[in-house]
Amino acid sequence: MTPFTVTILGSSSALPTLTRFPTSQVVSLNDKLYLIDCGEGTQIQMRKFGLKMGKINHIFISHLHGDHIFGLPGLISTMALGGKKGELHIYAHSDLKIMMDPLLIFMKDMNDFKVVYHPLNFRRRSLVFEDSRLTVESFPLKHRISCCGFLFKEKQQELHLRGDLINYLNISIKDRVILKSGADYIKADGTVIPNTDLTIPPDRMRSYAFCTDTLPRKQIIPVIQNVDLLYHEATFCNDLKDLALKTYHSTALQAAEIAFKSGVKKLIIGHFSSRYKYEKPLVDEARTVFPNTFAANEGEVFVI
Amino acid sequence: MTPFTVTILGSSSALPTLTRFPTSQVVSLNDKLYLIDCGEGTQIQMRKFGLKMGKINHIFISHLHGDHIFGLPGLISTMALGGKKGELHIYAHSDLKIMMDPLLIFMKDMNDFKVVYHPLNFRRRSLVFEDSRLTVESFPLKHRISCCGFLFKEKQQELHLRGDLINYLNISIKDRVILKSGADYIKADGTVIPNTDLTIPPDRMRSYAFCTDTLPRKQIIPVIQNVDLLYHEATFCNDLKDLALKTYHSTALQAAEIAFKSGVKKLIIGHFSSRYKYEKPLVDEARTVFPNTFAANEGEVFVI
Repeated sequence: MTPFTVTILGSSSALPTLTRFPTSQVVSLNDKLYLIDCGEGTQIQMRKFGLKMGKINHIFISHLHGDHIFGLPGLISTMALGGKKGELHIYAHSDLKIMMDPLLIFMKDMNDFKVVYHPLNFRRRSLVFEDSRLTVESFPLKHRISCCGFLFKEKQQELHLRGDLINYLNISIKDRVILKSGADYIKADGTVIPNTDLTIPPDRMRSYAFCTDTLPRKQIIPVIQNVDLLYHEATFCNDLKDLALKTYHSTALQAAEIAFKSGVKKLIIGHFSSRYKYEKPLVDEARTVFPNTFAANEGEVFVI
Repeated sequence: MTPFTVTILGSSSALPTLTRFPTSQVVSLNDKLYLIDCGEGTQIQMRKFGLKMGKINHIFISHLHGDHIFGLPGLISTMALGGKKGELHIYAHSDLKIMMDPLLIFMKDMNDFKVVYHPLNFRRRSLVFEDSRLTVESFPLKHRISCCGFLFKEKQQELHLRGDLINYLNISIKDRVILKSGADYIKADGTVIPNTDLTIPPDRMRSYAFCTDTLPRKQIIPVIQNVDLLYHEATFCNDLKDLALKTYHSTALQAAEIAFKSGVKKLIIGHFSSRYKYEKPLVDEARTVFPNTFAANEGEVFVI
């Protein structure tokens, strides 16, 4: 199965700490890298964890608070200095361009490298990106400013051919393509061999949902239903649920409840307030409702 | 003697490395902190090295390349979240305000905390700041865009009183103030005691010059003459002097020649190209001309 992973670059909330950077993650599928959010120091973390910046062509930004975007100017600048060519696509609130343009004046002189901004829809679930391997949808969250989550879903892949039989029957390249699409194989003498004898079903379609910053929001449950991996913010423990409500954040318990009701397989919590030196109380609290919970930590790679 | 130091927060050139952050330094005198340049990650480095962000009220920015300013939005945002009050003064090219304003929209709602921009003069040496203990002057450097260096000079301090004699003669508070200004002491019976008998000369006035990014520039020699400590960029070794010339940077040898001709006491070199994994060849090269040369390294504190 092709590796499909998410690497945590930053797990703090607005104030970074000695061990936690502000929010950023890299989703990797089939050797392609997709960046979600870009807090200050994202380029430093990518270098530390051996992730090649030049491989990033698509960046998804949940919202325009500084701890989710202040790493963009440095990352783009380093990409440019590294000789990156072509287009870098950023999916974000339309104001991002207004914020970045004065900082990226050097881009004006670079015809080979261009940033293309794609405004997100914060009102309803929308398909924002697709390539041959996956789709990315956005969906509304509830924060102090416009904010959305992202759902990464692997696309249905082709059938796998059973190499031993394919070679034994000496099936042509052209017929192999036809077989992969699901058709039966017809031999030169007219004999039909059912497709199921010659192929193996495609890999299961895996999915990952990213939800930060937000109040716990029941409207997202049908969107993230049954995902393999959910990242949900848990800025506070539940004894501070009034503060969470006031600041439009979630508690670890609330994140776990969302995970439980959505039937997801695994939950990562993050975006921890700097008041928590250790993540244990947050993880312990979430596990009372959803045992398969893990804390986001810088450099950790979660398999989707 | 009051501690007067500079702490290196970042010593890389445009591309940060696994061990080097982009340019930033903290000058500390009399428990006051002054920031010079603010590359991405400055707030992370300040936290790491135990320097309180709230104590920064004055920031000096040499020029508007990203590796000298991309840490500003995060630093200011963290100061605001930390409840900082009053004014933060930034001395920089006038375009900085245009670059920062769209990122700092949250400041609009903060009446207690305000950023005040002071445009620098890139044509001639100018006094940009003074308080009771020091002056900061800017002076033109030669880079691809407007750029200046900074000269931190301690002000002449008062004479120290000789406590033993002052107590023995039972000199009043009022007369002590007069003595500190340099006047002789006249006893009640009219006897004159010369000032030099009752005082010790003030501490030597110390000075620090910061010069990056720049070609080696002989015009700065009279400005930085005899400073106690000089930071001069040394992006390359001298075998790449053509590249240095083309990119408006200096080599380690050229930095050392400036230090030698200026009669400075000690030289720090920094702003190293990411191609140098170790600073040894740069330091070795500089020491052939100016033996008292040291490399800037993150977290290092140099006494001025």
